[in-house]
Amino acid sequence: MSEYVPVAIIGAGPAGLTLSHLLHQHGVESVVFESRSREDVETTVRAGILEQGTLDLMRRTGVGERMEREADIDEGIEISVQGERTRIDLTGLTGHTVAVYPQHEYLIDLVARRLADGGTVLFDTTVDAVSGTGGADVTDTDVTGSGPAVVDYTDAAGRPGRVRADFVVAADGSRSPYRGLVAGAGTDGAGADGAGRHRHEYPYAWFGVLVNAPKTQKELIYATHPEGFALISTRSDTVQRYYLQCDPSDTVEDWSDDRIWEALHTRADSPDLRIAEGEIFDKAVLRFRSAVTEPMQRGRLFLAGDAAHTVPPTGAKGMNLAIADVAVLAPALVRALRGRPGLLADYSSIVLPRIWRAQHFSWWMSSMLHQAPEATTFESRRRLAELSSVLSSEAGRRYLAEQYVGRDLPEFEV
Amino acid sequence: MSEYVPVAIIGAGPAGLTLSHLLHQHGVESVVFESRSREDVETTVRAGILEQGTLDLMRRTGVGERMEREADIDEGIEISVQGERTRIDLTGLTGHTVAVYPQHEYLIDLVARRLADGGTVLFDTTVDAVSGTGGADVTDTDVTGSGPAVVDYTDAAGRPGRVRADFVVAADGSRSPYRGLVAGAGTDGAGADGAGRHRHEYPYAWFGVLVNAPKTQKELIYATHPEGFALISTRSDTVQRYYLQCDPSDTVEDWSDDRIWEALHTRADSPDLRIAEGEIFDKAVLRFRSAVTEPMQRGRLFLAGDAAHTVPPTGAKGMNLAIADVAVLAPALVRALRGRPGLLADYSSIVLPRIWRAQHFSWWMSSMLHQAPEATTFESRRRLAELSSVLSSEAGRRYLAEQYVGRDLPEFEV
Repeated sequence: MSEYVPVAIIGAGPAGLTLSHLLHQHGVESVVFESRSREDVETTVRAGILEQGTLDLMRRTGVGERMEREADIDEGIEISVQGERTRIDLTGLTGHTVAVYPQHEYLIDLVARRLADGGTVLFDTTVDAVSGTGGADVTDTDVTGSGPAVVDYTDAAGRPGRVRADFVVAADGSRSPYRGLVAGAGTDGAGADGAGRHRHEYPYAWFGVLVNAPKTQKELIYATHPEGFALISTRSDTVQRYYLQCDPSDTVEDWSDDRIWEALHTRADSPDLRIAEGEIFDKAVLRFRSAVTEPMQRGRLFLAGDAAHTVPPTGAKGMNLAIADVAVLAPALVRALRGRPGLLADYSSIVLPRIWRAQHFSWWMSSMLHQAPEATTFESRRRLAELSSVLSSEAGRRYLAEQYVGRDLPEFEV
Repeated sequence: MSEYVPVAIIGAGPAGLTLSHLLHQHGVESVVFESRSREDVETTVRAGILEQGTLDLMRRTGVGERMEREADIDEGIEISVQGERTRIDLTGLTGHTVAVYPQHEYLIDLVARRLADGGTVLFDTTVDAVSGTGGADVTDTDVTGSGPAVVDYTDAAGRPGRVRADFVVAADGSRSPYRGLVAGAGTDGAGADGAGRHRHEYPYAWFGVLVNAPKTQKELIYATHPEGFALISTRSDTVQRYYLQCDPSDTVEDWSDDRIWEALHTRADSPDLRIAEGEIFDKAVLRFRSAVTEPMQRGRLFLAGDAAHTVPPTGAKGMNLAIADVAVLAPALVRALRGRPGLLADYSSIVLPRIWRAQHFSWWMSSMLHQAPEATTFESRRRLAELSSVLSSEAGRRYLAEQYVGRDLPEFEV
């Protein structure tokens, strides 16, 4: 005999925890399986920029209190072209802001809230198998109340368990093994109908460091230079996050502290601003890739967040897209559980346009700000002319700013 | 003994004739050498879109009268994505317009005006050699009044001639042999200082047809479709100019009338608009390439228009860039002849930023509207998402419109 839960969620990242939280707000219970420890989830430093739509959703659903108190609300970003800085006045151009609030802080808030609400988040728990999620036919997703889908797992104590569910959501990140259960998604390229996994590789990566240093300035600096890109961002008053364009094959050993500081100053300093130095306490190479799985569902199985799509970090879209997915998936699941499966059947087609626009924005920001190693002189000159066209035009800055702050999240009655 | 003229101009295209006209307005005489016949110059159908800055310059310098009467002033263009049309309200977004006025009509007006003003335009005249234009040192360009530069030519009757000039301007189009006289410009790629000829190739070309048909509608339609790009433009009430994306290796024989109509309807029709058919009386394949020569001058020799730079036709920038070049070069030459060579020394550095922005715009419009034959599904989806981002945003449409109508031309006192 196994337990029943309406929705089984694999992965306690932004997509999984937010989905569980939103479902609870509509009286639908779920269980979240997470292979890592709670401490690991709550301390791993990842993304840090929340769009307006994400902020609104946090406030609206009662998980925004600490963010409201502690996050840096940024009303602008700067783009530095060989040391010449142009401010993009996000608020003046769009009426919106973004918040610098690290992903792990968001997850701390969500875990606390889920547990306070009596939710089930199983850390250190490995999902061993998912079955019974069925085929592509929407009529297969009639709600039975007993749960034809089955999730087998091993809990923190090493004990096997089984949960039956009406729906399973894979929100377990870019290496999700469940993508393969969605037709065509396991293969490279696309079928005749465009179904499949669509990938794009970039000829660069980011070398990221965490530094004990004061802020260079409050707002982020996206810097481009003939030697490459740099991003000056911040995690707190005392911890800064810097990134440097590097070769995808680079390792942590290739970048001494001296080399890092020299590259940061060369690429991002301007005549009246010097990047703040401090103790470098973490170094990592971030891979740069784009991928989208289409469709993001089959039968009773749904993909959300990085399990379905990956963006390069330049546009700061990854976490926001994950939350945008479940802002649709949550009401869709609630409706389906109440006998109205239409929105759930349309989940992929509703969320994919936003995902592709975010893929475009991430590709555009990446292409415009990085010096591709194989770029011809024509390509480099064209890229600088594009920056000039965008930055010298109010319309160009606003077009960029609109995409940076993101569109409002859709809201659905349930 | 040979004649002296302050400025010798090679090529009676938009750059050469406009330069000669502008110089005359400041009392500086020139001679224009053109290897083709007057009839050929005045009947060859080429570009057709004049930017606001070009229109303003025509009006200001007294050659806009017939254009004012006969040109179609367009306040918008349409972009059709798989038959779904979005209007770009050029005038509403920028306050500017463009004019549909074929290049050969512009040349008819300029030739007539030059001859009426007593100017010298030598048709059917081949330039055999240019010498004495000197080195890169600006101090070499002191005006002597006798002309150290020498142009040897053969006139329409086959008689050799020689003109001495203070300055020589090569405005003889994309195959100009005089580019090689500008340091580094004869070679592919770039030197350490970026000097050279910078090229970019595209994986497509345009198949252009002239058709005896009424207008489908007044405003241009830029259409993109999975099968490729099409442009519905017009030359007059009875002659239409259509373009179809094709393979660069295609020949006129590859495209029967039936194939042309089928492709045009597939790519550019929309539910409430069918492209007007008629007798196709001209077919041609237009090559697609970008190239920029840097710098555009050496000693007493200056490049203008296509002799220095080529853009793909998508942005309708070629003729306008040629005129923008000479809007700087004319006052610079006048000043130099009056003993102030500073502006002339800066000619390249003043005009190149506009040229690179136009290269970017032409590349962007081309990339966004064409289906590259080797495009991955990711690239095709990203491209459609970019179109969605641009067309659904007022800022995006304005950013595009600003570049389409072009920036004002600079004006210099002499």
